[in-house]
Amino acid sequence: MPATQRSTKSHPRKPGSQSALRHLNQQRIIECLLSGPSTQAELSRQTGLSTATVSNIVKIMQDAGLVSTEPTTSSGRRATNVRLNSNGAVAVGIDFGRRHLRVVLASLGYHVIAEDYIELPLGHQAEEGIAAAVLLLEKLLQENGIDRTAVVGAGAGIPGPIDRRSGTVAQGAILPEWVGIDILHRLEEALNCPVFVDNDANLGALSEVTWGPQSGVSNLMFLKIGSGIGAGLILNGFPYYGNVGITGEIGHATIHEHGLVCRCGNRGCLETIASTTTMIELLGRGQETLLTPQDIVRNCLAGDSATQRVVDDAGLAVGRALGNVSNLINPEVIVVGGPLAGLGDLLLDPIRRGLVRHAVPVVGETTHLAMSSLGARAEALGAAALVFQHAGITGR
Amino acid sequence: MPATQRSTKSHPRKPGSQSALRHLNQQRIIECLLSGPSTQAELSRQTGLSTATVSNIVKIMQDAGLVSTEPTTSSGRRATNVRLNSNGAVAVGIDFGRRHLRVVLASLGYHVIAEDYIELPLGHQAEEGIAAAVLLLEKLLQENGIDRTAVVGAGAGIPGPIDRRSGTVAQGAILPEWVGIDILHRLEEALNCPVFVDNDANLGALSEVTWGPQSGVSNLMFLKIGSGIGAGLILNGFPYYGNVGITGEIGHATIHEHGLVCRCGNRGCLETIASTTTMIELLGRGQETLLTPQDIVRNCLAGDSATQRVVDDAGLAVGRALGNVSNLINPEVIVVGGPLAGLGDLLLDPIRRGLVRHAVPVVGETTHLAMSSLGARAEALGAAALVFQHAGITGR
Repeated sequence: MPATQRSTKSHPRKPGSQSALRHLNQQRIIECLLSGPSTQAELSRQTGLSTATVSNIVKIMQDAGLVSTEPTTSSGRRATNVRLNSNGAVAVGIDFGRRHLRVVLASLGYHVIAEDYIELPLGHQAEEGIAAAVLLLEKLLQENGIDRTAVVGAGAGIPGPIDRRSGTVAQGAILPEWVGIDILHRLEEALNCPVFVDNDANLGALSEVTWGPQSGVSNLMFLKIGSGIGAGLILNGFPYYGNVGITGEIGHATIHEHGLVCRCGNRGCLETIASTTTMIELLGRGQETLLTPQDIVRNCLAGDSATQRVVDDAGLAVGRALGNVSNLINPEVIVVGGPLAGLGDLLLDPIRRGLVRHAVPVVGETTHLAMSSLGARAEALGAAALVFQHAGITGR
Repeated sequence: MPATQRSTKSHPRKPGSQSALRHLNQQRIIECLLSGPSTQAELSRQTGLSTATVSNIVKIMQDAGLVSTEPTTSSGRRATNVRLNSNGAVAVGIDFGRRHLRVVLASLGYHVIAEDYIELPLGHQAEEGIAAAVLLLEKLLQENGIDRTAVVGAGAGIPGPIDRRSGTVAQGAILPEWVGIDILHRLEEALNCPVFVDNDANLGALSEVTWGPQSGVSNLMFLKIGSGIGAGLILNGFPYYGNVGITGEIGHATIHEHGLVCRCGNRGCLETIASTTTMIELLGRGQETLLTPQDIVRNCLAGDSATQRVVDDAGLAVGRALGNVSNLINPEVIVVGGPLAGLGDLLLDPIRRGLVRHAVPVVGETTHLAMSSLGARAEALGAAALVFQHAGITGR
């Protein structure tokens, strides 16, 4: 299991390389083992791999705590039985938000063992968030009687782009206090296990195709509409990271060439029209207390016409950006998540209108739009899935 | 080797499936054989595959005409020697244009054996194009003394989107006379070999990472600016086809919400601003004879200020669309091809300005822009590469 983001990054890019082949072979072995324990000879027969290859990979997986072996006999001959560890191998999923922290513990096979959630102060420093995550993890392990050594890895989601060349949070993050932090290595030091870091929208996409109802979808986009707007991509069945890891920045698609100035320094970006921050500004004029995204959902569902208009306008702008996106990557499914997911069709309908209006006809007709059903857990579940993915376990 | 587009389409999407594994294993074997003949036992040792698996795959490749086998001895024991066929296995690349047809013959290992080019009348029917391709291919085979049975497959490029569900040319094609034609099966009947069909821009992308100077680039976009504007994508090292095969339709990105009506039925699409058709209209007002793209290149290089302004405006609009694209998929390289490639920096500079203006800073700074160096041969070479790809030969 690769210990750093950069080394893992290169995996899906070099399908012909030795490490990618090893990874694929390990995945085949785990897929066989998910249906029950098996001898090494059976694994060799089922996968088409040589017995030496199977034996090597099993040894590596055993060292990583993923499998256990025991001597047995098969057809009267000595053999080695291999089985996947369950609670003996636990993945941690951490979701760092602007003002919250969520931690889940998951066993192989995508079962949640335990989870917890705490609030963090707005504007907290990265170190505070990391310290809180360590405490919450220790608490969950203790409460569930799980040994610290059972943790095979931790995934962490950050609401902002991560530059995969340096492993640091890049500019444009919703957590400006975290920009420039080498989040990967700070977490590895604090948690003392292999760590995988990703953008929250990427983890949303991963959670949909692993834990969620979209499992088996090869080309999926997860669009998170919140204080910022970002997207995660699953392309050809794999999470997609591009050249330096900054992908899905659909919030900075230019909608109005001479529109409002965006926090990215550009003008008229989608975020200046359709983020919850903009909706709150539009709807809060002259009011004393700031609205929350939950207020927007409640007021819109209750029929408030100004809120419905603001949501409709935002949805149309999002749909326009999605039309251009769909013309480019022709996804099978676009899942919308974030704090407005409770709006359901009140938000999906204008998005769909915008999409169909701006996409090439056959693309607009065949792109399926859906609200995320994983809610606020999507990112933490996706973070745990990141660990499974790197262990070669692709889905439930 | 899969005989239809649809069966091959599913390949990169299911990395864990039996056929994908077989394909990957075949690719490993071909990679070993590219450095010279080898015994089956050596292939097994080099790839980590069991001897039974190697033997099965070699049998399939032999039946497909890709390899030859002969008995030999190794360390005093009987063995089977395997070698790749060269001119015994020829791939055909066909480029269908609005008014031209190009055919190349290529041997395994990406060597061009022969090529030819003819002009076709504007508005020709698909059947005329197919018949001309058959004649040109027969002529090339005869002139080079290559037996018809040596053709292991043909790739064909069409300037328009191809709906991979049906294998037909979809609406929005630059060849309206070809819309709805089941080009895949018509070509298979006419050529009597496995055929792979793709969009011309996709083939441009493939040619850059196989024949061209961008080999080894995992995330590349090929942008073809001509009568239409379309893009081909290589993502995570593989050609990317999306859900139904209609990808890279960047020509229909909305630039001006209430701009000119586009042939797609939308308004203000990039094509209405930056295609050669639009440039010719803008520059041809009041003139008796229509300009050609070659005239635009010549006049612009000669310093004609109106032409330079039109090219600059087109480049800025293209750059804006590329900024949004780069924010989404963060490519390493964007290659610009098509009949204006001779403009060099006169076109690349405004594109770069538009890209940097509209992309998230780190994305704008790290995306490399280049003109295609393969010129008018890009599509035909890419079409031949399509055959190699399906045979598991990924590059020179």
